[in-house]
Amino acid sequence: MKGKYREIQEKVFDYLNSRPELVTPVEISMKEHRELCMRQLLGLVREAGIRPFRYCIEDPQKYFAIIEAVGSVDISLAIKMGVQFSLWGGSVINLGTKKHKEKYFDGIDNLEYMGCFAMTELHHGSNVQGLQTVATFDPITDEFIIDTPNDGAIKWWIGNAAVHGKFATVFSRLILPTHDKEGISDMGVHAFIVPIRDLKTHQILPGIEIHDCGHKIGLNGVDNGALRFSSVRIPRDNLLNRFGDVSRDGKYTSSLPTINKRFAATLGELVGGRVSLASSSASVLKVAATIAIRYSLLRQQFGPPKQPELSILDYQSHQHKLMPMLASTYAFHFATLHLVEMYSQMKKSHDELLVGDVHALSAGLKAYVTSYTAKSLSICREACGGHGYAAVNQFGSLRNDHDIFQTFEGDNTVLLQQVAVDLLKQYQEKFQGGTLAVTWNYLRESMKAYLSQPNPVTARWEGEDHLRDPKFQLDAFRYRTSRLLHSVAVRLRKHSKTLGGFGAWNRCLNHLLTLAESHIESVILVKFVEAVQSCPDASNRASLKLVCDLYALDRIWNDIGTYRNVDYVAPNKAKAIHKLSEYLSFQVRSIAKELVDAFDLPDRIIRAPIAMQSEAYAQYTQRVGF
Amino acid sequence: MKGKYREIQEKVFDYLNSRPELVTPVEISMKEHRELCMRQLLGLVREAGIRPFRYCIEDPQKYFAIIEAVGSVDISLAIKMGVQFSLWGGSVINLGTKKHKEKYFDGIDNLEYMGCFAMTELHHGSNVQGLQTVATFDPITDEFIIDTPNDGAIKWWIGNAAVHGKFATVFSRLILPTHDKEGISDMGVHAFIVPIRDLKTHQILPGIEIHDCGHKIGLNGVDNGALRFSSVRIPRDNLLNRFGDVSRDGKYTSSLPTINKRFAATLGELVGGRVSLASSSASVLKVAATIAIRYSLLRQQFGPPKQPELSILDYQSHQHKLMPMLASTYAFHFATLHLVEMYSQMKKSHDELLVGDVHALSAGLKAYVTSYTAKSLSICREACGGHGYAAVNQFGSLRNDHDIFQTFEGDNTVLLQQVAVDLLKQYQEKFQGGTLAVTWNYLRESMKAYLSQPNPVTARWEGEDHLRDPKFQLDAFRYRTSRLLHSVAVRLRKHSKTLGGFGAWNRCLNHLLTLAESHIESVILVKFVEAVQSCPDASNRASLKLVCDLYALDRIWNDIGTYRNVDYVAPNKAKAIHKLSEYLSFQVRSIAKELVDAFDLPDRIIRAPIAMQSEAYAQYTQRVGF
Repeated sequence: MKGKYREIQEKVFDYLNSRPELVTPVEISMKEHRELCMRQLLGLVREAGIRPFRYCIEDPQKYFAIIEAVGSVDISLAIKMGVQFSLWGGSVINLGTKKHKEKYFDGIDNLEYMGCFAMTELHHGSNVQGLQTVATFDPITDEFIIDTPNDGAIKWWIGNAAVHGKFATVFSRLILPTHDKEGISDMGVHAFIVPIRDLKTHQILPGIEIHDCGHKIGLNGVDNGALRFSSVRIPRDNLLNRFGDVSRDGKYTSSLPTINKRFAATLGELVGGRVSLASSSASVLKVAATIAIRYSLLRQQFGPPKQPELSILDYQSHQHKLMPMLASTYAFHFATLHLVEMYSQMKKSHDELLVGDVHALSAGLKAYVTSYTAKSLSICREACGGHGYAAVNQFGSLRNDHDIFQTFEGDNTVLLQQVAVDLLKQYQEKFQGGTLAVTWNYLRESMKAYLSQPNPVTARWEGEDHLRDPKFQLDAFRYRTSRLLHSVAVRLRKHSKTLGGFGAWNRCLNHLLTLAESHIESVILVKFVEAVQSCPDASNRASLKLVCDLYALDRIWNDIGTYRNVDYVAPNKAKAIHKLSEYLSFQVRSIAKELVDAFDLPDRIIRAPIAMQSEAYAQYTQRVGF
Repeated sequence: MKGKYREIQEKVFDYLNSRPELVTPVEISMKEHRELCMRQLLGLVREAGIRPFRYCIEDPQKYFAIIEAVGSVDISLAIKMGVQFSLWGGSVINLGTKKHKEKYFDGIDNLEYMGCFAMTELHHGSNVQGLQTVATFDPITDEFIIDTPNDGAIKWWIGNAAVHGKFATVFSRLILPTHDKEGISDMGVHAFIVPIRDLKTHQILPGIEIHDCGHKIGLNGVDNGALRFSSVRIPRDNLLNRFGDVSRDGKYTSSLPTINKRFAATLGELVGGRVSLASSSASVLKVAATIAIRYSLLRQQFGPPKQPELSILDYQSHQHKLMPMLASTYAFHFATLHLVEMYSQMKKSHDELLVGDVHALSAGLKAYVTSYTAKSLSICREACGGHGYAAVNQFGSLRNDHDIFQTFEGDNTVLLQQVAVDLLKQYQEKFQGGTLAVTWNYLRESMKAYLSQPNPVTARWEGEDHLRDPKFQLDAFRYRTSRLLHSVAVRLRKHSKTLGGFGAWNRCLNHLLTLAESHIESVILVKFVEAVQSCPDASNRASLKLVCDLYALDRIWNDIGTYRNVDYVAPNKAKAIHKLSEYLSFQVRSIAKELVDAFDLPDRIIRAPIAMQSEAYAQYTQRVGF
């Protein structure tokens, strides 16, 4: 399970290990935590010579590997790094043009130009097109004037704003003067570079009011602030003008024809954040699952009369809590690896089909993986009982820091709808004879299968060979997705006649979200099945196959009502699926130690005393002073 | 929804409002938090004259009301209070005899005798009978000698131990010298009062080693410590001797015949903690649901083209997240109220059947309610997006403090097994003609119904009147429980032949846990249906009925696979249940504001700026400094 970029990750660990004063302590005030995070970042960049910015642009896989490594030290540091390089830096490079790169690259790279990504407002997060901050062009001075028209438009949650930022990429409605009755024209949301603090004195610049958003549930090493602008003037050059520009005389030009296309192109450049979060979230799950499983092997409680106590992982209930989770961790590993590779390819080829696929897949995997991990962190804590509640055993900080992964870079409920939109587009293309994009062309086959009723013979097959056949599993996943897709398309058409498009969408929203999740689960399964099949070692392949089967059957069982309802499986087959998934949990338990060892996470990353690979209890008692 | 004890709760709030220096700030070090909590407790008892200890013994409903009130100020304070009065104080009074009450009551009551409840050890939490600390009687000096035989027996997580405790009730194996070959006899786990710090100097006493368990995920206002004993001598009188005593010459006497009966009697006295936690957890859920729902009404995002944005609670997906949760909150309110009343009655009557019922019901409700609330806190945070992540908006501290409710006073997975044990006992009694206890005598009827196949006619009824008929709903819940009970009994019998009792239990563990949850859900429904029926106001009754129907149908839909698999419902009925529960969520949404207002929680308890009843956004922006 080792990544390809272990070398640069080791460099991160070696540097931070050599600087014990940079280790984040269990108790630290918000103020100190922010300063420590800044020192960690400065140390990595300026002392250790790790310069993530160029990888962020040119070699995203390597960049994500660095983010993963620093995240295992302190997730705040990973997020602060992401704000600086992906969001602030990425917006300058990807939304700007050559002049911006020349002017800002070095300062961003060496941290002299600490910056912010000021998109979210108090009243608008998900609905980015509803942002209200305005940037009005003043043709007399050749400047834009940035204004916060009301308190709802205060930029909120802006990382690096409360303390360290010198600049911000500010998303604002571009307002141009016109000669018609209205007098102005709203060109939609664009991005502008706004200096917010003096480069030398670090004083907040005139017209800008910044307040501290204060304590968060986690990530308190990141200094989020709120910004209000009053007639802040910036040169015209500060418009990040890759997708739309304003000439000296106030004329708008763009290679893209509509506001919506420009908006889509702008947001499309920000997809890397989602790729990174999906991948980081899977890494967090690896750490949590490792702690919970190692401790559950160590911990003994109760047992048969007059016999030694049993490891709690030998209880069926505990296997039920942790083994499907371990299987999902493996599944997410392969799926996010695939996503990262696709994203890297896309950054090189700019192939249009690939862009669409990466967009939908990153939205779906980010939503699915972060939601699953968030739930799992709570299950892991609970599975470790009282000792899981000790701060040193990590679940608290992991959960508190990770929690917001479900919300930032796109609220999960909103992202899943984007997946559903994409599937419906594919569905329409299929029935209008258009091409199907790369990822989901399984729909082509399974939609056909769907149009007939489930096969009453295979619905009764319940042998282990059949249930463990990837053909059956994939068919089950795809059948469900196809069926959900077809039925929601019919419902949408029906309701839109009376409720309109928006009303129909809302009436079918739960259905659409189920569809999106179902689809993502099946994409994950495809990647897992491929990973099993391409595993070179026969014994490892057999182990992986066990894990993959558990992932597949556990998911099918979780939604057994749907399968039963359409008679895709007969009652006895449903029971057989349940029985086999319990048995697979039991089988996976017997190799659970090896499966978590294979993540190859050293104790210095795991850190929890209860999960140390030797003398865990002794390390734990020593930790409190015995 | 107002409780009967609002007066004493108001007294708590008024006192704490009058002492702003006692309010727990958002950021506070662990050390300061512990001292603040102690000052809060001292202030309430000595300044405000609130003396919970006597209520804890004589009027538990009033005691729980005080715990609820202080918990809404700081959950750490509620837990510290619980450690002092329920656990330390309760063990002295309920496990000791008159001499102990005379000697300790006043000191516990006025907080001069701060104390601990030292049961859990590093290696043993759930398996209390496996504790290893020993108390050996020394007939020469008439003392017990307390010893920690190995590091696994270090008392761990002991509240009040790290800083404030003067005494501890220490659970130890009572060892008596004998004249046979063994030389000693192990009488099982008993409770002993052990002074741990000098009453005047507060120095730790000789032979006792105390270390600080350190930071926890939450509840850092409670000072948990770890204790190791080396030949600590205490007078014989310090044995809490209600259920077993040792005479001057080292003879053991007890009114109860066996170690197991004495152990059960001892633990039986501690059931109040579970009652309190179930009730407190429901209160936490009320606060969280109120914040999430008020904010979801305020928050607008997206909407139909060219129309104002929509409140996010108008989205079907958001209704799906929050409305069944609101229904559960109401359900838990009535169920825990019932439990508290039963417990109060039990404390007065000591009726044996009632003791058994309270034991099983408190185990089941504590487990079910705390697990549900823990999950819901995460859902609420996520439903409030980025603003839900601000520490001032409460979800972080609520979740972190509440998290351990799932573990302490009995791990939820262990408690549910106690419910299953109890159900199996009832099942055996039924089939052996014994009496059935009060709570579950619905089994009598439904087991009969179960023995026949589901009615193929009613399995097809799908009209709203039928689905909203409590008779159908109760029958569905009970049918499921009865079926699970019968089938697990058959499986246990079968497996025990080859695997033995313990092995068979473990093989059926998931099944047993599902059975226990199913049973608890149906007990909750019974109480909800009763509350609806006894609601005097017709309009309120209709509203409550909506909420109750949503609770019932949502639960049935969540387990639709089970119902479909036995043809209890036909496919179209399953669809109708799904459709109706979505529609009920939509209906409940239309009275959601009134439903949370009815909890009657003032803004000073809710505290989250985003959930204030007027000008929420303005209060939020002011909070960060605008």
